[in-house]
Amino acid sequence: MSAHNTLWSGRYEQQAAASLRRLNDSYPFDKRLYADDIVCSIAYAQALGRAAVLSEDEVKKITEGLELVWREFDAGLFLLKPGDEDVHTAVERRLTELIGAPAGKLHTGRSRNDQIATDVRHWLLATVRRVQVRITELQRALLAQAKHYVDTVMPGYTHLRAAQPITAAHWLMSYFWMLTRDHERLNGVYRQCAISPLGSGALAGTPYSVDRQTLAEAMGFESITANSLDAVSDRDFIVDFIHAAALHMVHLSRFAEDVIIYSSPQFGYIQLDERYTTGSSIMPQKQNPDVLELARGKAGRIAGHLSGVLNTLKGLPSTYNKDLQEDKEPLFDTADTLETLLPALTGLVSTMTLIPAKLEAGLDEGMLATDVADYLVARGVPFREAHGIVGRLVRRSIDTNTPLSQLPLEDYTTISPLFSQDVFALYDYAASAAKRSAPGGTAPSAVRAQIELAETILSSSSSD
Amino acid sequence: MSAHNTLWSGRYEQQAAASLRRLNDSYPFDKRLYADDIVCSIAYAQALGRAAVLSEDEVKKITEGLELVWREFDAGLFLLKPGDEDVHTAVERRLTELIGAPAGKLHTGRSRNDQIATDVRHWLLATVRRVQVRITELQRALLAQAKHYVDTVMPGYTHLRAAQPITAAHWLMSYFWMLTRDHERLNGVYRQCAISPLGSGALAGTPYSVDRQTLAEAMGFESITANSLDAVSDRDFIVDFIHAAALHMVHLSRFAEDVIIYSSPQFGYIQLDERYTTGSSIMPQKQNPDVLELARGKAGRIAGHLSGVLNTLKGLPSTYNKDLQEDKEPLFDTADTLETLLPALTGLVSTMTLIPAKLEAGLDEGMLATDVADYLVARGVPFREAHGIVGRLVRRSIDTNTPLSQLPLEDYTTISPLFSQDVFALYDYAASAAKRSAPGGTAPSAVRAQIELAETILSSSSSD
Amino acid sequence: MSAHNTLWSGRYEQQAAASLRRLNDSYPFDKRLYADDIVCSIAYAQALGRAAVLSEDEVKKITEGLELVWREFDAGLFLLKPGDEDVHTAVERRLTELIGAPAGKLHTGRSRNDQIATDVRHWLLATVRRVQVRITELQRALLAQAKHYVDTVMPGYTHLRAAQPITAAHWLMSYFWMLTRDHERLNGVYRQCAISPLGSGALAGTPYSVDRQTLAEAMGFESITANSLDAVSDRDFIVDFIHAAALHMVHLSRFAEDVIIYSSPQFGYIQLDERYTTGSSIMPQKQNPDVLELARGKAGRIAGHLSGVLNTLKGLPSTYNKDLQEDKEPLFDTADTLETLLPALTGLVSTMTLIPAKLEAGLDEGMLATDVADYLVARGVPFREAHGIVGRLVRRSIDTNTPLSQLPLEDYTTISPLFSQDVFALYDYAASAAKRSAPGGTAPSAVRAQIELAETILSSSSSD
Amino acid sequence: MSAHNTLWSGRYEQQAAASLRRLNDSYPFDKRLYADDIVCSIAYAQALGRAAVLSEDEVKKITEGLELVWREFDAGLFLLKPGDEDVHTAVERRLTELIGAPAGKLHTGRSRNDQIATDVRHWLLATVRRVQVRITELQRALLAQAKHYVDTVMPGYTHLRAAQPITAAHWLMSYFWMLTRDHERLNGVYRQCAISPLGSGALAGTPYSVDRQTLAEAMGFESITANSLDAVSDRDFIVDFIHAAALHMVHLSRFAEDVIIYSSPQFGYIQLDERYTTGSSIMPQKQNPDVLELARGKAGRIAGHLSGVLNTLKGLPSTYNKDLQEDKEPLFDTADTLETLLPALTGLVSTMTLIPAKLEAGLDEGMLATDVADYLVARGVPFREAHGIVGRLVRRSIDTNTPLSQLPLEDYTTISPLFSQDVFALYDYAASAAKRSAPGGTAPSAVRAQIELAETILSSSSSD
Repeated sequence: MSAHNTLWSGRYEQQAAASLRRLNDSYPFDKRLYADDIVCSIAYAQALGRAAVLSEDEVKKITEGLELVWREFDAGLFLLKPGDEDVHTAVERRLTELIGAPAGKLHTGRSRNDQIATDVRHWLLATVRRVQVRITELQRALLAQAKHYVDTVMPGYTHLRAAQPITAAHWLMSYFWMLTRDHERLNGVYRQCAISPLGSGALAGTPYSVDRQTLAEAMGFESITANSLDAVSDRDFIVDFIHAAALHMVHLSRFAEDVIIYSSPQFGYIQLDERYTTGSSIMPQKQNPDVLELARGKAGRIAGHLSGVLNTLKGLPSTYNKDLQEDKEPLFDTADTLETLLPALTGLVSTMTLIPAKLEAGLDEGMLATDVADYLVARGVPFREAHGIVGRLVRRSIDTNTPLSQLPLEDYTTISPLFSQDVFALYDYAASAAKRSAPGGTAPSAVRAQIELAETILSSSSSD
Repeated sequence: MSAHNTLWSGRYEQQAAASLRRLNDSYPFDKRLYADDIVCSIAYAQALGRAAVLSEDEVKKITEGLELVWREFDAGLFLLKPGDEDVHTAVERRLTELIGAPAGKLHTGRSRNDQIATDVRHWLLATVRRVQVRITELQRALLAQAKHYVDTVMPGYTHLRAAQPITAAHWLMSYFWMLTRDHERLNGVYRQCAISPLGSGALAGTPYSVDRQTLAEAMGFESITANSLDAVSDRDFIVDFIHAAALHMVHLSRFAEDVIIYSSPQFGYIQLDERYTTGSSIMPQKQNPDVLELARGKAGRIAGHLSGVLNTLKGLPSTYNKDLQEDKEPLFDTADTLETLLPALTGLVSTMTLIPAKLEAGLDEGMLATDVADYLVARGVPFREAHGIVGRLVRRSIDTNTPLSQLPLEDYTTISPLFSQDVFALYDYAASAAKRSAPGGTAPSAVRAQIELAETILSSSSSD
Repeated sequence: MSAHNTLWSGRYEQQAAASLRRLNDSYPFDKRLYADDIVCSIAYAQALGRAAVLSEDEVKKITEGLELVWREFDAGLFLLKPGDEDVHTAVERRLTELIGAPAGKLHTGRSRNDQIATDVRHWLLATVRRVQVRITELQRALLAQAKHYVDTVMPGYTHLRAAQPITAAHWLMSYFWMLTRDHERLNGVYRQCAISPLGSGALAGTPYSVDRQTLAEAMGFESITANSLDAVSDRDFIVDFIHAAALHMVHLSRFAEDVIIYSSPQFGYIQLDERYTTGSSIMPQKQNPDVLELARGKAGRIAGHLSGVLNTLKGLPSTYNKDLQEDKEPLFDTADTLETLLPALTGLVSTMTLIPAKLEAGLDEGMLATDVADYLVARGVPFREAHGIVGRLVRRSIDTNTPLSQLPLEDYTTISPLFSQDVFALYDYAASAAKRSAPGGTAPSAVRAQIELAETILSSSSSD
Repeated sequence: MSAHNTLWSGRYEQQAAASLRRLNDSYPFDKRLYADDIVCSIAYAQALGRAAVLSEDEVKKITEGLELVWREFDAGLFLLKPGDEDVHTAVERRLTELIGAPAGKLHTGRSRNDQIATDVRHWLLATVRRVQVRITELQRALLAQAKHYVDTVMPGYTHLRAAQPITAAHWLMSYFWMLTRDHERLNGVYRQCAISPLGSGALAGTPYSVDRQTLAEAMGFESITANSLDAVSDRDFIVDFIHAAALHMVHLSRFAEDVIIYSSPQFGYIQLDERYTTGSSIMPQKQNPDVLELARGKAGRIAGHLSGVLNTLKGLPSTYNKDLQEDKEPLFDTADTLETLLPALTGLVSTMTLIPAKLEAGLDEGMLATDVADYLVARGVPFREAHGIVGRLVRRSIDTNTPLSQLPLEDYTTISPLFSQDVFALYDYAASAAKRSAPGGTAPSAVRAQIELAETILSSSSSD
């Protein structure tokens, strides 16, 4: 007797091996697509109705049946049965149990190939928007913090070496802009997703006169794919999403690195709220920045997904190949990672405190060396030469173990006769920061402009 | 005695270790930026002139000096000297030799941090456009081939198993659309590049009243960065470019895989032109598809670059860190790979020949099984049930070793009474393809529409 | 009031934020370590007993309590409670419920840092052995197939172009040797795992006089780590395992590619057993090689894990950082992937059939061109020149559309006077293969020696 | 007219397209293999002599000719000519010019496929040993530093939070052991390389009675490959090498991260020698740790190569495919990166200074909290409970802003009556470290044992 336990077993004499089923079945991870599958199937049934492939009554039965399946899923009452390879076949099987023969007509002209591609895009449309909301929340938290520290001066680093005084708000806002790019990049991903492949069939298109554009819009898409062979195996939108996520995670990892260092005992610039740290099983005094470390560590996870998916796609023959089933787990995990991580990070940012006394203690006069060079430039010395002169002053300061501002004027004038008493007025960190007032600079005035621009962007993105 | 052999050695007592210099110096790979460096430096000198930091005469001397350096590079006459760590310091050193003191003023308010970020973006703006032109050429080659094969029927595969008849033009065009997405993705990269970081200084901005927007436009950028800390270490545009390239390479690798298989002796669907194949050192009869294999293999190379750059960026403290020097080699190699590979692929596509007799020989009647199921659907059988019926017919065909079209009608009617003599009319591959005429389908009519759309896209992108 | 719901909350005033808990808790994926955790804890309790830190009675209570917890897990009766962050704290919490005070002594001198490192290594020791058994089964299947086809000649390919005749057993055995390397590589991983970090404490070692070597052996390890700072964050053994898996997957992906192509309709060299193929939801005739496609696609998944873990580890400060929690999911998924995939592949290999008639049909005389060159070499022509002569013969064959063996002798002698009638004896595929009888060659005699060697290896590895 | 400009063009009517040549030719990067190619060719000629395929005189001429080519390369006098696709054909072409006809016999029974595989393995054998020497030098530098700081106490961190006091030598030695694993891992790579594929021909083996084992040993290999199909495309040894390098780079990146942070102004634990730092083009005071940042950043580069090569290998049909040409650039770059980086790092380590006063200043009493808990354990309190008690003490210390050692005894006894005056003796960092004297612990006594073991390892590896 033939084994008729799957949708495709008509020509088969023997049952699939158990080891194949364990390997092949995707229900455990694609079940989360149930709502997308059902929404798109309802739209497809209606399109078949408009194309006169289904009668009005059949469309009605299918629609109601699918809505019932949906409610079963929502309520956690859906029961998996042997032969349910994936969520798509599980839904169709259940629909058949509920409404009988008309269920068998739903797959007319449709293949799992175009169905899966459609469902995943549909799922990702909503997911991208949810992730964008989470990013915006983190941006708001950064912005809210920044407003408190517009006039707070702190050490700015390059190479993790004291470089020049900056304002703390400027530092906080630097991450705002990375997130803005991430948000925009996701808009691009959204546009890629919003193209419906439904009507591409297994690979060659559909012989039924389904109006693909109308169908696409009914499901929430904007347009339709141009070539059925491409459409059933195009996973660019998934790679684009994981790429956007990987780059976003790079930004979060850099923020994490900064804050881990800045909240270390030796820096002490930032105090994390207890609720966003954890303790040690052995060392009673510990407060560990796990959220930040996970933000940093998970950047590797998502970059790994990107690398893995590109590897999987490389060198595949055209149209659908089963290898493509490997796209879903990294996609889902990427979205889950962002959706779990971002709220924790937003909470941490909202509740952390910068410690101005410590920020100030971190400043040292070497950070004003560029200003001393600029002082000479204003007196006509070419910058390159001024740089060398100040380098020698710094050397003198180190050799005599005397801060720059405490070196006698004589030491200055020995090195360059252009120095006069007013050079000592340069040793003012806030004044140094305030000079860098061109757009994008660290001066409080420039940072206020930054913050205004940021608010404009946020208010427009919320109404997006 | 102090060692004054670099731009920054004023405070140093000792010379850099030789092993550090070997590790650190980037001139061997960043020298290709010379023209970008000089163009941007000329624009910067003029901006300093407008800001009254340089006199008109100084700007003139710097400009003319830089133009001379440029000509030396172009002519291959530029001489590297000890202490030239990178192209930026090499250019400045040479400028100093040529014009003396004013050269030392060029670096006023500018740091290598914002200078490098600016130069690389400037280089990439032109590179993206060049790559896009190469992609368009390959698209034209595909389109030209497609026009010859609109009515040629060939086997369409899924899972590399015969699936349904398709038109050869449809297959060729499927790659056209992947490349269209790649081209668009590069437009996004271009927009990311077209933002000037110049004026961000080392990290904190510039204390000179340089008009950053005017300066940006003078260099060919569109707008300016919003935060100096972010600007000096933002490498998103590089990751975005490598990502776009990696995905493009995935598409090329898939095309390569298809053509390698289709031009294998057993398939024989495609004949490659001798000029685009190579021989064997030991087997005199060989004609190897090296271009295609390298297209496939190099997909790994570029994906590796993407993975590597993400790893390098992960967890960096904010602003500039030397780790960022690792961005340039993968960036340059990615661009070089595309610029070397694409012309060879375009040549291969332009000169290859599809062999209609072989394509036809590849068709078999199993590929029409879906049409037989659709026949039953038209007679009211739910598709799911029709699929099962046809599965049994296929089984019968295998068991009796008889093609579907040669099975007696009786075999059909035994399995379903709805079959009648007209079922045999389905065994027509061209007719099967012609039925799939909805947008994006494989029917010649739909493919002609595709080709028209493609031509519209190409003509608009060429005038971009 | 203090929140005392975790093991470490003594110094805390406030409860962890819900978003932190969701992000941080690892129980959902590390629960699979329960048996390892319990085995190692029992050994640790006994070591504390030997060090007189615990009394005999305490050791007994802890041991019995842990065995009870173990049975609860085995029976699926273990109940997770709020505050159970990971499997380690869950086990300790439950132990406390069961035996009270003595449970609190188990953590003496131990930290989760060394505990986790120990548990994961313990888990991996057994996992490596299980995977090796699965690999050996696949090797046996290949070997069993090879024995049937020692004298079967088939086309050997390079560049997927017909190259020289080979024996089918030689092709099958080529994968055997890749797997042998994989098996050996896992032996190296095993040796890396078999080093116990227990006794390293949080980072600085233990102040209790636990005999680490005896403890290590009690848990099944061979030796102990040399530096506690290194020991708590060494994840090399995980990277080594994923690397070994990634390379193994590369081999499986290459086998999959070969068999997908060889079982395609145009090649037809291999017939897959129905039980190891799947059908299509729309095309009733399809038999898709999903197992092979997943073997190929999952190579990307594992390579992605490797890339991800390396990224996560890069640049971490020394000793334990929370980022390291990201090691477990890719590790577990890598093992699961191999354990799911290998039995399916072994089943597929065991049940597939090579079709000698098709293999023979795939041969063509061009594949003997090297033999013709060797014929000339035997007559004193330098190989390089002989290669050129035969190239011209091949050209003649193509131009006249005549097989090499059907060209008149005159065509041969025109090109080189050294040819005589006996050249036609070269057109014998089996004889060509039989000539390559040096060790490692394709001749049946050499393949028989290969098979013998393989059997020796298998019989020794089974008693390993 | 035929184009006879390559070794394989006998059957070709047309010249290769220029774009193909640009893409295909590998001479620019494989020329570094010239000595390996020549050594192996000389050995091969002699093997052909022993097999009576070449006369004694021919062997002599070939040997002398090849030695002359070698000297031309060494002297930089070798001239590339059109048609020299790669170093192998360049050498053979030049040999032909020098000695005429016998040169054409060198390729008898050999293919570029087995030749390349042999040359690369040969190159890597020596390279692995060179890299191991560099690693050993870095180990010696770490060990020499460690000896100075066996009794120096410093803060030990987990999560970059003060954890427990450790000895500075223990920290330095932690990296020694990572490098020991790296060195061992390279021994495994060496063993993989030391297997000769020569005699595998293009894919099917050799019909000449070359004694492969003797030939292998003549070239410096240990054994021979077992299957010719596998041998010509096995690149496991390359992946294994890049993997070993990637993991080594992870270790170096972690060391770099530690030292970057420890030498930051806020930590100040380490002073880098000026010769191993660099300055800034704009900020005269800077001393940047470029060597360390590049060590960290280049970890991404090598991980990227690993990811790329795995991607390239994935899914290749068996035996040689041109994709494999993509293995060499990442391999060479990986070796070059290590050989450039390691000497700079060794120099940096040898010349850096730890600042004991700063290390001491970094200690705080919270780091002794575990010792206080252990004090209670010794008085019979279960560790878990003791941890909670000490947590409350820490809380009290924070709330009253009083160091633990300055809290009145009353505060202790209020929290637990088991405390008595002797608890204050615990506030001694050196004593805390000294307690952790089990093997692998941080106590000076244990570290001295570590150092002894390390010296044994180094002295044995140097005589390896």
